[in-house]
Amino acid sequence: MHGSNAPETQLLGYAGGRLDRVDHIRTNSDLLAQAFASPLARRVVLEGLEPVVEGGHLAMEPLPADAWIEHHVLLGVDEGQRPIFAELLADTPDNVMPSARSRSLVSEVPGHEAALYGTARSLLSWHARHRFCSVCGQRSAPAKAGWSRRCGSCEAEHFPRVDPVVIMLAEHRGRVLLGRQHGWPQGRYSALAGFVEPGETLEEAVAREIKEEAGVAVHSVRYVMSQPWPFPSSLMIACTALADDDALKIDETEIEHAFWCDAEGVRAAMDEEEGAPFLAPPPLAVAWHLLRHWLDGQVAGRTPSA
Amino acid sequence: MHGSNAPETQLLGYAGGRLDRVDHIRTNSDLLAQAFASPLARRVVLEGLEPVVEGGHLAMEPLPADAWIEHHVLLGVDEGQRPIFAELLADTPDNVMPSARSRSLVSEVPGHEAALYGTARSLLSWHARHRFCSVCGQRSAPAKAGWSRRCGSCEAEHFPRVDPVVIMLAEHRGRVLLGRQHGWPQGRYSALAGFVEPGETLEEAVAREIKEEAGVAVHSVRYVMSQPWPFPSSLMIACTALADDDALKIDETEIEHAFWCDAEGVRAAMDEEEGAPFLAPPPLAVAWHLLRHWLDGQVAGRTPSA
Ligand SMILES: [Zn+2]
Ligand SMILES: [Zn+2]
Repeated sequence: MHGSNAPETQLLGYAGGRLDRVDHIRTNSDLLAQAFASPLARRVVLEGLEPVVEGGHLAMEPLPADAWIEHHVLLGVDEGQRPIFAELLADTPDNVMPSARSRSLVSEVPGHEAALYGTARSLLSWHARHRFCSVCGQRSAPAKAGWSRRCGSCEAEHFPRVDPVVIMLAEHRGRVLLGRQHGWPQGRYSALAGFVEPGETLEEAVAREIKEEAGVAVHSVRYVMSQPWPFPSSLMIACTALADDDALKIDETEIEHAFWCDAEGVRAAMDEEEGAPFLAPPPLAVAWHLLRHWLDGQVAGRTPSA
Repeated sequence: MHGSNAPETQLLGYAGGRLDRVDHIRTNSDLLAQAFASPLARRVVLEGLEPVVEGGHLAMEPLPADAWIEHHVLLGVDEGQRPIFAELLADTPDNVMPSARSRSLVSEVPGHEAALYGTARSLLSWHARHRFCSVCGQRSAPAKAGWSRRCGSCEAEHFPRVDPVVIMLAEHRGRVLLGRQHGWPQGRYSALAGFVEPGETLEEAVAREIKEEAGVAVHSVRYVMSQPWPFPSSLMIACTALADDDALKIDETEIEHAFWCDAEGVRAAMDEEEGAPFLAPPPLAVAWHLLRHWLDGQVAGRTPSA
């Protein structure tokens, strides 16, 4: 039996891409030109970094006759053998944080189309903020069908960033640690999170972040799932961990508040019940799935307590 | 009973750091100046990016009286309350790939000291290759005790890279897929590996890489462990997966050769037996631990076959 009335399968936002990324075409200028010239070729319609939805699908258009291949990223080839491109931005976007449109996309189009959009968004943001070579300061140019940039001055090659982030639930005797950041919607709480730093394992990053933000020492870190998060280009790595004890020492520069919530409270929040102890993160976020995973484990009695 | 004579616990290279990274000091210039001026403060002795070993330890020295705080990264505070720094490089290193000295360090000093070195190496490589702002091309300067760079011209802030890499064993009916890259030592085979790209989950990256390199479709990806790999700043994420079938279609631009190896062959290679079917990766690499993990599962009968 299940502990919640909420839908059991909610799409994980921006995951589940179906494009064949055709790595071999990126470095073959003949094959690339052929894909670009194909009558099947399409490009994602964007307004700046924002998606456009048409008839329940991410809008696509044929490549205009005057389009320049050098200004496009080849995202891949879809199931209909259509090469799918995205045009690089002419201007640097002011804001790479999640917009209402990019978030609502996940519920408006099939999941794999939101994933395609996320890939485009991450790559376009990266190009827009990497027009210059970080080694020598000269202008660089897109290469490998938009999957790298080359500096003509010092010959450095630069690759798109993917920034690993750990997001995690610490558990102590049947309760999980939830926190809220400054500026979040009223009542919203979620799993703690932070960027992985050079020189640490995922498990070490999880322990460091929980210690830094909430003053809690943890052990037995377990990987649960991952999600690409295109704001601008994170890889969310969701984990659970067991806490040594439940005393909190919150770093208020990092989070506004944190508390331990029992399974009944998590269930009420995920069912969006009135009087629930917090407002759950949206189902497009991996945090929602992590809470679901933990709750299922509690109901099934699978999860050991610290 | 165990299937191998090899030591059961081998240190995972560059993992197991023990520094408190003291995040709160990085952004507090008073506390940072205090740490830098402390008689307990030390900095890692390096020759370019290479480590120096003295008496079985990573060499450290007091900060010279004329040292500039702006030219140092605060790595953290050690168990003896000593603030540990590393000096930024004056020149851009030609080569950020693993050197013999940086690899042998792992067997010459305690594991947590190799981790400290790895953190320093990743950060120093990053600063050396990011002297200019990628947004506007002007010179940037270290900030936050070396944990970011700020551009005075456009005010962009840049953070050190951590590049997630998946490294994985595909299994098919009791055998695992091993590959060798061009230029590796004779007979050396290891797990396949590749960088995670924007817009994909870890599980999707694992499936894409095995398909690209060996033409094998996989499912049931499982996370095993992770490792920081400071050449220049990767996060190795080790996984297993089950293959649909064992037909290989090797991409020879990516790998030189690949084959399916049974548990007996893996055991012989890890025990460094004469006549073993391949030369195993060194124990400092996560690939060695991944093979060990798989082999233990085979012996214990835990791992399901595809
Ligand atoms: Zn350059
Ligand atoms: Zn700038």
